[in-house]
Amino acid sequence: MSPLPPEDVLVARLATVFKARRRDVLVPIGDDVAVVSPGGPVAVTTDVLVEGEDFRDGWDPERLGRKALAVNLSDLAAAGAPPLYALLTLGLPREADPSWLEAFARGFRSVAVDFGVAVVGGDLTRSPVTFVSVTVIGRSPASPLLRSGASPGDELWVSGTLGVAAAGLRARLAGWDLDRQGVARGPAGRLAPERYRVALSRMLRHQLEPRPMVDLGVALAERGLATAAIDISDGLARDLHRLCRASGCGAVVELEALPVDSELSEVAKLLGLKPLPAALYGGEDYGLLFAVSPGRSASVGRLSGRYALRKIGILRENPEIVLAAGPRHEPLPDVGFDHFAEAPGA
Amino acid sequence: MSPLPPEDVLVARLATVFKARRRDVLVPIGDDVAVVSPGGPVAVTTDVLVEGEDFRDGWDPERLGRKALAVNLSDLAAAGAPPLYALLTLGLPREADPSWLEAFARGFRSVAVDFGVAVVGGDLTRSPVTFVSVTVIGRSPASPLLRSGASPGDELWVSGTLGVAAAGLRARLAGWDLDRQGVARGPAGRLAPERYRVALSRMLRHQLEPRPMVDLGVALAERGLATAAIDISDGLARDLHRLCRASGCGAVVELEALPVDSELSEVAKLLGLKPLPAALYGGEDYGLLFAVSPGRSASVGRLSGRYALRKIGILRENPEIVLAAGPRHEPLPDVGFDHFAEAPGA
Repeated sequence: MSPLPPEDVLVARLATVFKARRRDVLVPIGDDVAVVSPGGPVAVTTDVLVEGEDFRDGWDPERLGRKALAVNLSDLAAAGAPPLYALLTLGLPREADPSWLEAFARGFRSVAVDFGVAVVGGDLTRSPVTFVSVTVIGRSPASPLLRSGASPGDELWVSGTLGVAAAGLRARLAGWDLDRQGVARGPAGRLAPERYRVALSRMLRHQLEPRPMVDLGVALAERGLATAAIDISDGLARDLHRLCRASGCGAVVELEALPVDSELSEVAKLLGLKPLPAALYGGEDYGLLFAVSPGRSASVGRLSGRYALRKIGILRENPEIVLAAGPRHEPLPDVGFDHFAEAPGA
Repeated sequence: MSPLPPEDVLVARLATVFKARRRDVLVPIGDDVAVVSPGGPVAVTTDVLVEGEDFRDGWDPERLGRKALAVNLSDLAAAGAPPLYALLTLGLPREADPSWLEAFARGFRSVAVDFGVAVVGGDLTRSPVTFVSVTVIGRSPASPLLRSGASPGDELWVSGTLGVAAAGLRARLAGWDLDRQGVARGPAGRLAPERYRVALSRMLRHQLEPRPMVDLGVALAERGLATAAIDISDGLARDLHRLCRASGCGAVVELEALPVDSELSEVAKLLGLKPLPAALYGGEDYGLLFAVSPGRSASVGRLSGRYALRKIGILRENPEIVLAAGPRHEPLPDVGFDHFAEAPGA
């Protein structure tokens, strides 16, 4: 590995990768500032990934580049805001391989292109630990979806299945990885046993390359279908607690309605994983959790095939948040991923 | 030191510190996104500080909070963009003291208040090394100042004196620090010798609490006085090379005109510092370096008292960048602060 070339060379190389002609980008990446003309109110958010916390040394840099942007777009999706611009800051160790940076930028750029995001700025610094700090700016819908808009009586809906990314993380930490073709391989490159191969590959892909639910969020906001929304980054339970806290209500979640991923039980033994806790507390599924007033339920139902939507419960005045199995109610604790917790939640 | 409380508690505490009522902030800090209505094109930029690179463990967190925002506002100043919003991301070690975070936030907030910046978002994560990543958004002037707008024949001007922050860094690394009253003290708290005290205190203050030249940048952009500008973050020489590269020209800098800080020679021996290299390659002065077409020279001159402006040279077609002492021309190398250089430039 050769050392990184000086900062300006790197910055110029990145600027070339990201430079895009767009009428709303008045000054592109490469100067002290970029100047953009979003044409109205904007939604802004920022999210950071740190080596050792959110990824490990040796993980594929191109996939990491994709994920770094995707998790930020997921926050815009939760607000129903179509993405417009991104700024990318990287802290890299002195011994970092230039090809690592190029692969990372390629991945970041591919998601930017997919979602129409212009990369308009960034910073590059040396750091003993690799980190990626991203800020994204989106067009705010007339009524952005907030965590705080739900009322008692609203239905609780979720998109996608639950627990897949947590299973993927477990697989990754046990030495499984995706090859270039996106197929799961174990240590020393051996293929996963055939009975697990498809499921493992899918779980790894969900963990390593989450898809932000931008179209769904925009549809919910534009058509006024949801009263509140949040993306499930830290687990259904924790993010439900956040939504309820912000909206000042409680919730009853129906155990039977939960879209626990159907393949979790297949890999449960292989990965030493319990499907239900993975679904409730696992995190990084990046689906949307949202509230729907009963009058809009039918309209949301018509989107359910397209976005894999499921009604999983109801919000209520009683501030408790419970998991209901028939008549039996159990508290659903505020447990999930927490960067500052003493012990991991799941 | 007690451990940090869980992430949500910290985030809520920070949101309380930063929550501000403003008509252009439609959704404040605390949700998945903030929504702002800047009312026109915006300038965006981002800058990161990393422990060990840009500051050391044990440095005053309140001053660091001020500096983290100030260096970002300096980039907006270079474009002539009045600041509007900021997003703050912090990576903190597990053992970080909660009072550290509170002091940091207090410092960050004080600069935000001074410059009318609404803090609208952020992220908090655990990291083995402390880092601070900030994104700022400002109102773009009709003609933002770029690095690339200068032409041969334009005059080269600079604000403030040069080398003060580099001397302050040298002092800091030699064990000098500011006390609560802003007075220089050495190891074990002893006061600096009286002959150095005022100069050392000022140099430490410039290093630890740079003031972004927002008013100057806005004045230059609004009145169309400068053709190009850059803030001197990495040293006069390096940032002049950047401006010239972007504008496609060279420069002659007059040695005699350089505003080398007059107190550098006083502390030179104490700090083992050579004034001229400190002024040329030292970095972190955060003045503005800008180009002025000859027809605007008189107007800029009328601002020179207020902003300590000095004409230091001229831009030319010949792409070389030289330092002139009378008839003698010597190349001014592209040397300065570089996060990825093998050896520090100065």
